Amino acid sequence: MTRLDLLAAEPIVRRAIEEDLGQGDITTSLTVPRLARADARIVSKSAGILAGIEIARMVFAILDSRLMFEPHLEDGARLEQGTVIANVIGSAAEILSGERVALNFLQRMSGIATLTSQYVSRVSHTKARIVDTRKTVPGLRCLDKYSVRVGGGYNHRFGLYDGILIKDNHIAAAGGIAAAVRAAKNRAPHTLLVEVEVRNLDELKEAIESGADAVLLDNMSVQTLSEAVQLAAGRVVLEASGGITLDNVAQVAETGVDLISVGALTHSPPALDISMEF
Amino acid sequence: MTRLDLLAAEPIVRRAIEEDLGQGDITTSLTVPRLARADARIVSKSAGILAGIEIARMVFAILDSRLMFEPHLEDGARLEQGTVIANVIGSAAEILSGERVALNFLQRMSGIATLTSQYVSRVSHTKARIVDTRKTVPGLRCLDKYSVRVGGGYNHRFGLYDGILIKDNHIAAAGGIAAAVRAAKNRAPHTLLVEVEVRNLDELKEAIESGADAVLLDNMSVQTLSEAVQLAAGRVVLEASGGITLDNVAQVAETGVDLISVGALTHSPPALDISMEF
Amino acid sequence: MTRLDLLAAEPIVRRAIEEDLGQGDITTSLTVPRLARADARIVSKSAGILAGIEIARMVFAILDSRLMFEPHLEDGARLEQGTVIANVIGSAAEILSGERVALNFLQRMSGIATLTSQYVSRVSHTKARIVDTRKTVPGLRCLDKYSVRVGGGYNHRFGLYDGILIKDNHIAAAGGIAAAVRAAKNRAPHTLLVEVEVRNLDELKEAIESGADAVLLDNMSVQTLSEAVQLAAGRVVLEASGGITLDNVAQVAETGVDLISVGALTHSPPALDISMEF
Amino acid sequence: MTRLDLLAAEPIVRRAIEEDLGQGDITTSLTVPRLARADARIVSKSAGILAGIEIARMVFAILDSRLMFEPHLEDGARLEQGTVIANVIGSAAEILSGERVALNFLQRMSGIATLTSQYVSRVSHTKARIVDTRKTVPGLRCLDKYSVRVGGGYNHRFGLYDGILIKDNHIAAAGGIAAAVRAAKNRAPHTLLVEVEVRNLDELKEAIESGADAVLLDNMSVQTLSEAVQLAAGRVVLEASGGITLDNVAQVAETGVDLISVGALTHSPPALDISMEF
Amino acid sequence: MTRLDLLAAEPIVRRAIEEDLGQGDITTSLTVPRLARADARIVSKSAGILAGIEIARMVFAILDSRLMFEPHLEDGARLEQGTVIANVIGSAAEILSGERVALNFLQRMSGIATLTSQYVSRVSHTKARIVDTRKTVPGLRCLDKYSVRVGGGYNHRFGLYDGILIKDNHIAAAGGIAAAVRAAKNRAPHTLLVEVEVRNLDELKEAIESGADAVLLDNMSVQTLSEAVQLAAGRVVLEASGGITLDNVAQVAETGVDLISVGALTHSPPALDISMEF
Amino acid sequence: MTRLDLLAAEPIVRRAIEEDLGQGDITTSLTVPRLARADARIVSKSAGILAGIEIARMVFAILDSRLMFEPHLEDGARLEQGTVIANVIGSAAEILSGERVALNFLQRMSGIATLTSQYVSRVSHTKARIVDTRKTVPGLRCLDKYSVRVGGGYNHRFGLYDGILIKDNHIAAAGGIAAAVRAAKNRAPHTLLVEVEVRNLDELKEAIESGADAVLLDNMSVQTLSEAVQLAAGRVVLEASGGITLDNVAQVAETGVDLISVGALTHSPPALDISMEF
Repeated sequence: MTRLDLLAAEPIVRRAIEEDLGQGDITTSLTVPRLARADARIVSKSAGILAGIEIARMVFAILDSRLMFEPHLEDGARLEQGTVIANVIGSAAEILSGERVALNFLQRMSGIATLTSQYVSRVSHTKARIVDTRKTVPGLRCLDKYSVRVGGGYNHRFGLYDGILIKDNHIAAAGGIAAAVRAAKNRAPHTLLVEVEVRNLDELKEAIESGADAVLLDNMSVQTLSEAVQLAAGRVVLEASGGITLDNVAQVAETGVDLISVGALTHSPPALDISMEF
Repeated sequence: MTRLDLLAAEPIVRRAIEEDLGQGDITTSLTVPRLARADARIVSKSAGILAGIEIARMVFAILDSRLMFEPHLEDGARLEQGTVIANVIGSAAEILSGERVALNFLQRMSGIATLTSQYVSRVSHTKARIVDTRKTVPGLRCLDKYSVRVGGGYNHRFGLYDGILIKDNHIAAAGGIAAAVRAAKNRAPHTLLVEVEVRNLDELKEAIESGADAVLLDNMSVQTLSEAVQLAAGRVVLEASGGITLDNVAQVAETGVDLISVGALTHSPPALDISMEF
Repeated sequence: MTRLDLLAAEPIVRRAIEEDLGQGDITTSLTVPRLARADARIVSKSAGILAGIEIARMVFAILDSRLMFEPHLEDGARLEQGTVIANVIGSAAEILSGERVALNFLQRMSGIATLTSQYVSRVSHTKARIVDTRKTVPGLRCLDKYSVRVGGGYNHRFGLYDGILIKDNHIAAAGGIAAAVRAAKNRAPHTLLVEVEVRNLDELKEAIESGADAVLLDNMSVQTLSEAVQLAAGRVVLEASGGITLDNVAQVAETGVDLISVGALTHSPPALDISMEF
Repeated sequence: MTRLDLLAAEPIVRRAIEEDLGQGDITTSLTVPRLARADARIVSKSAGILAGIEIARMVFAILDSRLMFEPHLEDGARLEQGTVIANVIGSAAEILSGERVALNFLQRMSGIATLTSQYVSRVSHTKARIVDTRKTVPGLRCLDKYSVRVGGGYNHRFGLYDGILIKDNHIAAAGGIAAAVRAAKNRAPHTLLVEVEVRNLDELKEAIESGADAVLLDNMSVQTLSEAVQLAAGRVVLEASGGITLDNVAQVAETGVDLISVGALTHSPPALDISMEF
Repeated sequence: MTRLDLLAAEPIVRRAIEEDLGQGDITTSLTVPRLARADARIVSKSAGILAGIEIARMVFAILDSRLMFEPHLEDGARLEQGTVIANVIGSAAEILSGERVALNFLQRMSGIATLTSQYVSRVSHTKARIVDTRKTVPGLRCLDKYSVRVGGGYNHRFGLYDGILIKDNHIAAAGGIAAAVRAAKNRAPHTLLVEVEVRNLDELKEAIESGADAVLLDNMSVQTLSEAVQLAAGRVVLEASGGITLDNVAQVAETGVDLISVGALTHSPPALDISMEF
Repeated sequence: MTRLDLLAAEPIVRRAIEEDLGQGDITTSLTVPRLARADARIVSKSAGILAGIEIARMVFAILDSRLMFEPHLEDGARLEQGTVIANVIGSAAEILSGERVALNFLQRMSGIATLTSQYVSRVSHTKARIVDTRKTVPGLRCLDKYSVRVGGGYNHRFGLYDGILIKDNHIAAAGGIAAAVRAAKNRAPHTLLVEVEVRNLDELKEAIESGADAVLLDNMSVQTLSEAVQLAAGRVVLEASGGITLDNVAQVAETGVDLISVGALTHSPPALDISMEF
């Protein structure tokens, strides 16, 4: 993560700590001597891709700036069952108090990176990029999207404010694909491309003719996607979307589309099993 | 949700809106006429349990207090593919701008409720309660735990501050189960029970003799759990934890344990497929 | 204070500084040379128990990280008139600007600790614990309750969220003590005990029979408290509450109750007289 | 309270609610039916002056905008034991959840107003004003100082930013009273008076000759205060400070000083006993 | 302004109110009777373009929701000396307290809109768009950029996060224009164009050949700009930047560039003279 | 700037960074190698007075605490075209990301200081002070007013809360100058002077007779101002206000008024041209 990523993440981490710690860690304060020290290891319990190591470090740094956090790997590293990710050394009480918050971040972020890397490896023989969507967990978008990048994926726009994607409901309100695309091309900031969603090849044709820069091909069969690639002939960026799974992503990529967007990367990633041992 | 739940959720919802909307919804502002009106339906695309309807309402209310939000169901309702959950009527632009944020909440919350209800239904012939853990998404714990309740589950403690659970690392630091439990019993607030984690029957015995009120049975086989139930003979609350899946949860429940905690309810719930149609 | 206590206290301290300092300390900026240095002493003007030394340190650390704060005592120390609590050495301007905020915290916190210790010493020949209530100053509960602990008292629940206490109005709404207690026992998180308030011995009996874990004996005479202790015979935790003063607390404790809650500890503690000398 | 007072108070009230309610009111949710309604009365249990009625109203309005809050009195009203201050009508659950927070504000604010009014009545036969200090509870200064006004007192400066008061330590750093006063007079904003603290009549003389507008007479005997009044002969505003009690305040006032500042008004006010009945 | 604009502006307005009002409006509270009512007019004292009317309305709505704010014009309206912009009717005290904050917003926003409209009208005979920069007042970017749109200008990117603009220092770090542009094209989100800054025609040629989508022509003479337009021949969007004034903007536009960016629109706009009359 | 100034400025700086950086600096992340280092100079492009050097330092310190910021000048220094103000040494990426935010602060603050110093130098042969007004940019008042001081000006009150200035609308509501002044004198905090606005000499006379401490002479001709000075004869502080320009400020000062307030210092300061070179 860059320093800017960390700056943006800090309030998220602080809120997570406040959420879990509240007015204090009762169990630890009742059972762990204040001077007890520990050397804890963060260990992967299954195979995957590491993401979030700097966030875990931040959790412990906020709780106790004197804790030593020694990472053995960087984000993007491949984990096997038993891989030691980092050591945390210092006051046993503070390490115990931060354990769950740190792991919650690591498990979600590594879960996303792992799932993304699975999609990416299935399409590595093609030119297709795996991209994410806005189907992220509320409040964690910057971390979710960072984790997609760690897994080898690419980011689509971050929000409604930094990219133009004209969907079916915009088209209906604007009075058709051509009308919507032209309205956008005329008045959009010059720094943004115009992407539009289409449901069939006729609409794709209309989109291209109206001057769209990119087209989202919504829920099309592999056969139709192939035809779309031929029809477009490189004039627009093509994004396949809808119904993509690990089973069919290779076929979709082989049609020649430029991008494949996968909502599941961020709306349903299984947590990677990571734990802390003392 | 109670009004207190909503009060606690409001800053989460505001941050989610800010995260997605930033300085504005460019696509909508370029393509949708300001006076266009819409009557949108929130529709389930698969079967499950609804959770989060009041949060979806709040999203639209914050964006535009003049939107009419008409729910057709309450949280806890059973959804089938095609079930219309609510209508949102008013300015097309504001509805489009809020669509994704509202759905992101609904999909995660309903995903948790749905997964929970599956676990609950597998153990309905026993006295066992399905309970959640602190393995929630950072910043969303109150919504995650609410969704577990909607799905028929029960909440374990919310954080480190409102419950005592002495884990292996506390025990090591305190010098054994008996020492840890007694330290906690002596000094704990009188409003809290003392729960301790054990790994085998000998430790269970020690825990009971030291005066623990509840015991977490960590990663035990069904056979061992049965023996634990017999050994405890009702003197302590027993919680089975670790390695619980939809496949084995019924067997675990049939051992007679009081509680079964399932981290996956909140760390890996698949989003329920819900969308908005105009 | 633990590091977690300090983490929770930091926003409170920052708000207090902002409240007093606003856009600046005019008097100091007009009269004190920027390079002037000072060695100031924080001195007790009366006898009592010290609480809040780490908060005072935090005030000066936020204002100027180069100030040296040298505490001579820790929280819980006994103060006499003239006891030097700490030295603050460095820029005279920043010390003067922080003086009032630091003293306001110290005086309130030490006031609470001092009052608590007076109650505690009156009952030291009994097993009774002095506990606080939720009658704290809005926004300062964590510091108020910490100060009670420093004074030798124990904390009751922190808020409505981490303990169950069924009061008369809950009982009325639930339809009686038995109904209320049973409803709570059936559905409460397994980590929490159920405490219920009673006004006489009949109600105490009903509470015990319904399965309450603890009972708050509201405004009972010493005579009735004694009878309550006999009636309970150790089956429930007994808390005496209402009308407790320094004059009668020993008698109350001698009845054999487990807990004596005293609202005055936090709603009406006289500030301890502490000042800063240069 | 004016609307501006309420605007400033709102974040304080919200924090107090969050502090007490956290993730919810467990007891109420377990025992009180959601449709149960109540008509609760806020009642004074002792004699005093009411302050904070609008804050109590705000607590309930934030929790549930449908609650009806019917005040029977305004701030400044005289309370006797048994006086009904307001009724709160609506959902029993929300009223119970807000009770303690509302009372905590009312009891502190009315406690300050009551104590202030006692000082004010002792000096009503003189021209002296009772004024407060910056010895307020951290974070509640605006409410503390408002309550002083309700009790008939006047406010000294709110913070270090809106008034000039040169104290002994400023004088030492500046090199004497005359040097300090002149430095302040030369460079102070033209909207502010210059007040300086003196310990004896010689210093008073020096202060007046240096051009001070007001003088704080620190810890002087009644005899010395009288001489100070004669010496000043109306050339400066005179404020008596230090060691003022209800017992000696009338004598102090009778010396002819303009202002008498009393730290105890806000650092040690006994809470007024106010409760809620259903 | 759209509702989303207002949602984003609200914290800015609240901070402005808090900044000016602090613990209260002393003058008004001392001199204006609480029941006094007023009908105030917001009046332009010079010619220009109105911007910020909804922000002014928000100021008064926050201070007192019962004030009636009756706008006579919408943003973008042409103002002459004496034009009545709006009436504010209700409590005299609250209107007086909000006057300055409301005017500060109106004067800056209308100042920006007015200056922008002057640039826009000078180039209305060409296809060139006037665009803003990131040289805005810290914390007010969304209002500054909104005001540019009101004045007929267009927005460049809002921040570093929603547009790509490769400047000289990026080029130096990347090892040349071609290297920088290709790096960006290869890895940029597909929703964003790649714009690059050049200082002469050779660099322009390199930029076009490397695949840049838009080129910022930095500080070029009108003659060179003309040559750049010919050289580009429509293959890239051309933005003229640097040294643009009201005097030379028409000439610059007549060269055929697509965009002219003007930092002065937001870094040095003279406030439009607007006042409130009772 | 004092440490208190910096403490107050920090949230402003953090918001400015968040506003410009959002979820990241795309251009830099795409084009600048993470290990690239730079030695950048902040250079003045025109003559003026420096203000804001500590704010620029804070911007870079927040982004990357390892950057070395080496100032060559302090606030108040005279700048010529080409003056090197500071060096920033370290990671090229972080320096580039912070450049615009740092310059936006420096340019506005130095612009204000420069404009102020021009007014101040025009009146340096008189006793008149140049003072600012509340016509500042919303949210930046503390920096705007600091910059006025750097330029040699003085601050009027900071907000409505720390000074009394009775304007025409207050007078109307209070029922005349005498009534308003007397109401204020009777009830104002003793730390504040009472200033009142008058439009002619009759009103000035009334103000003085009512006991006003200072009088704002609104929009008077130089001739009338002279007469006002004679009429007042030193009994009140006189502030000239309205219609003051660089052209007429010397004449106004020569009338003998004490203060000249100039709104343009903060509502319309041209930004000083400052840039960063690598």
